[in-house]
Amino acid sequence: MTLAATIARFAASGAPVENARDVMRQSLYDWMVCGISGASEPVSLIVREQALADGGAPDARLFGGGAVPARAAALANGTISHALDYDDTHFAHIGHPSVAIFPAVFAAGRHDGEARLDAALIGAEISVRIGLWLGRSHYQSGFHQTATAGAFGATVAVARLFGLNEEQLTEAIGITATKAAGLKSQFGTMGKPLNAGLAAECGVIAADLARRGFVSNPNALDGPQGFGSTHEGAGDLTAFDELGSAWLMQDVSHKLHACCHGLHAMIEALGSLNLTADTVSDVIIETHPRWLAVCNITEPKTGLESKFSYRQAAAMVLGGHDTSKIANFSKETATDQKLSAVRQRVQVRADDLLSETEACVSVTTTSGEKFMARHDLISKISAEEKWQKLRRKGRALVGKDIEERLYNTTACPVDSKALLDLMETPAR
Amino acid sequence: MTLAATIARFAASGAPVENARDVMRQSLYDWMVCGISGASEPVSLIVREQALADGGAPDARLFGGGAVPARAAALANGTISHALDYDDTHFAHIGHPSVAIFPAVFAAGRHDGEARLDAALIGAEISVRIGLWLGRSHYQSGFHQTATAGAFGATVAVARLFGLNEEQLTEAIGITATKAAGLKSQFGTMGKPLNAGLAAECGVIAADLARRGFVSNPNALDGPQGFGSTHEGAGDLTAFDELGSAWLMQDVSHKLHACCHGLHAMIEALGSLNLTADTVSDVIIETHPRWLAVCNITEPKTGLESKFSYRQAAAMVLGGHDTSKIANFSKETATDQKLSAVRQRVQVRADDLLSETEACVSVTTTSGEKFMARHDLISKISAEEKWQKLRRKGRALVGKDIEERLYNTTACPVDSKALLDLMETPAR
Repeated sequence: MTLAATIARFAASGAPVENARDVMRQSLYDWMVCGISGASEPVSLIVREQALADGGAPDARLFGGGAVPARAAALANGTISHALDYDDTHFAHIGHPSVAIFPAVFAAGRHDGEARLDAALIGAEISVRIGLWLGRSHYQSGFHQTATAGAFGATVAVARLFGLNEEQLTEAIGITATKAAGLKSQFGTMGKPLNAGLAAECGVIAADLARRGFVSNPNALDGPQGFGSTHEGAGDLTAFDELGSAWLMQDVSHKLHACCHGLHAMIEALGSLNLTADTVSDVIIETHPRWLAVCNITEPKTGLESKFSYRQAAAMVLGGHDTSKIANFSKETATDQKLSAVRQRVQVRADDLLSETEACVSVTTTSGEKFMARHDLISKISAEEKWQKLRRKGRALVGKDIEERLYNTTACPVDSKALLDLMETPAR
Repeated sequence: MTLAATIARFAASGAPVENARDVMRQSLYDWMVCGISGASEPVSLIVREQALADGGAPDARLFGGGAVPARAAALANGTISHALDYDDTHFAHIGHPSVAIFPAVFAAGRHDGEARLDAALIGAEISVRIGLWLGRSHYQSGFHQTATAGAFGATVAVARLFGLNEEQLTEAIGITATKAAGLKSQFGTMGKPLNAGLAAECGVIAADLARRGFVSNPNALDGPQGFGSTHEGAGDLTAFDELGSAWLMQDVSHKLHACCHGLHAMIEALGSLNLTADTVSDVIIETHPRWLAVCNITEPKTGLESKFSYRQAAAMVLGGHDTSKIANFSKETATDQKLSAVRQRVQVRADDLLSETEACVSVTTTSGEKFMARHDLISKISAEEKWQKLRRKGRALVGKDIEERLYNTTACPVDSKALLDLMETPAR
């Protein structure tokens, strides 16, 4: 049985479990927050403008407003929702699953919300497993799994939604093998969010062509000179162990702070102590050594530099500045005298016994008390606690009213019509 | 200076010489013949149907009829014009230049015919040189230069047509670096012509995004983890020697017979003798050994098998059956008793002193006379002789009337409006 055939069988008949659906529901909410709040970014204006200029059948909605053919909406919305780089991440996949999958699934056809959620979860699960199968060798050699593995996930999601049979599914996967693309060398440019859009677009096109009877090479994923071998894939088939019973997508991480991922564990640990700046005498942060070269700017002067500064982020937590809010990482906070005074009391140290997702903070108060906290980003938190954190981020990004409506439309059952209406929220 | 900057300078200010323009004009004629006659192929119906279903601004024409946005037309027409696999080939590029370039250039914007020809030549020259720069290592590892190098060529062609400046051009090349894709493992399926369509589509999208101010990595072609290094490119910069003064596109080959390329040198050699079946007693064909495993079916029973049979093709030449006509490679000719009797007099031998593009035929007549002829596909023929052969093919594929109109619209100056009207010729 080829890998495409294995995937096709799962896509046609896989049955998501409730726990995985609940996580996917959180990702849907979070994706909508990112899309609505990313709609006024410069790259978003460009791709939306291009989609509207071409026009065509108004089958699918655009973030920021307008309706265009499904293919065009998938490309634009994938790009827009990744514009802030604030969407979910899966560390095994090495990529951002939601921005490749949801734009395709909410563009294609007319389906109720729960069917779309179901298809998105099937597609996301495949993108994570193909990402794992391609592995570090693929990523290190320069390919961007969000785009490449993401394209296969988007194809499978739309094919599921369309009800394609197993044979059509393998054709769609074959088409994706010759179309999927995306390089990491676009990081730091508009090309990075575009890569997510390209993956979503590929899903719509490949599933649609297969539905129309297109014949590709159904063995072009893992066959001779297939996508895996031509793109430095590690080809580790254990990536597909327990497909259908274990749901790797459940381990997805949601970004809760508007700064470099290297700061997040520290922010969670320090925040858990509930201390305020005026009671703190000194803070010691311990983190994995690799982060010191990434996000340890000691005296940031701009918003961007603050996003890469342990000391500034710690001062913001103690000073009560919401780190989930993008606007709070600004020139004003970077040069604020009170925050500046607090960050003089913060020291950062490397500890190679910590993993890359861990941080440890030790605080001494003005009265001499000592507190310590440790956080690991991969540690599980309850669904309820995750919702609290996600909703706080949601309020910070799209405001109280939209957030409330958004939460209600993604709560079970997903209200597809209300969600598509919210997509067109004018950018703030 | 980065490679993208070198290309951008050439694209912005390169000045094609007349000889190269004349060859490009022949390729334009030949591309139109392939597009018009390929419009009723199954893959063509699928991609056209998809483009028309999405609809949108009727900016560009489709082979077979209809008008859609430029991006959609480029995708569909690239696929349609490669559906018969009867379009031009460049052996240094290792690909089919015209099917990636012309569909983009005749979809984008409103321009006069000579400006489009000019832009197409600039783009084709770049696709050939990028194909050379990527080299055999790229091709052997599984990538399809028609799609990959073709996408860069299409981007440069449309960018030239749009009048983008050098900075915008490097951005467009950067976008193409993250989008270009296409695998050889699609050969033998509808995925092969789709690869040409994807290249043409990429050109329209990348140039349009760059025009709108999109920022990519302008060093994503040959920079760190750029397209070249991630796609097994050999990176031989001599491929760009004499850019602007030498025109490699002039060496393009036009396919003049509707069968495997391995038979073409033999057909030319045997045809040059002007002999007829009834006067021939025996024929010895000598060819490069690699072809014996490719196109030496001794007793073909179908049209497809005839396309891979030295003996049958030789019998057709001697029997006066036009080998440029697709319909002549049929079950009827394969099982024709007269032709079958002729092919019993044909022997095929390997000769490893011949190159892959050469063949030698030795004929003994019934009266005992001996004739010999040799042909090498890469040997130059006069422009006039080439036109005669191309027009014979054109008549065989699209009929006398359409051919006549087509020849007149591609003769200097190219009549863009008449050409676009001809594109909509209903498939026969």
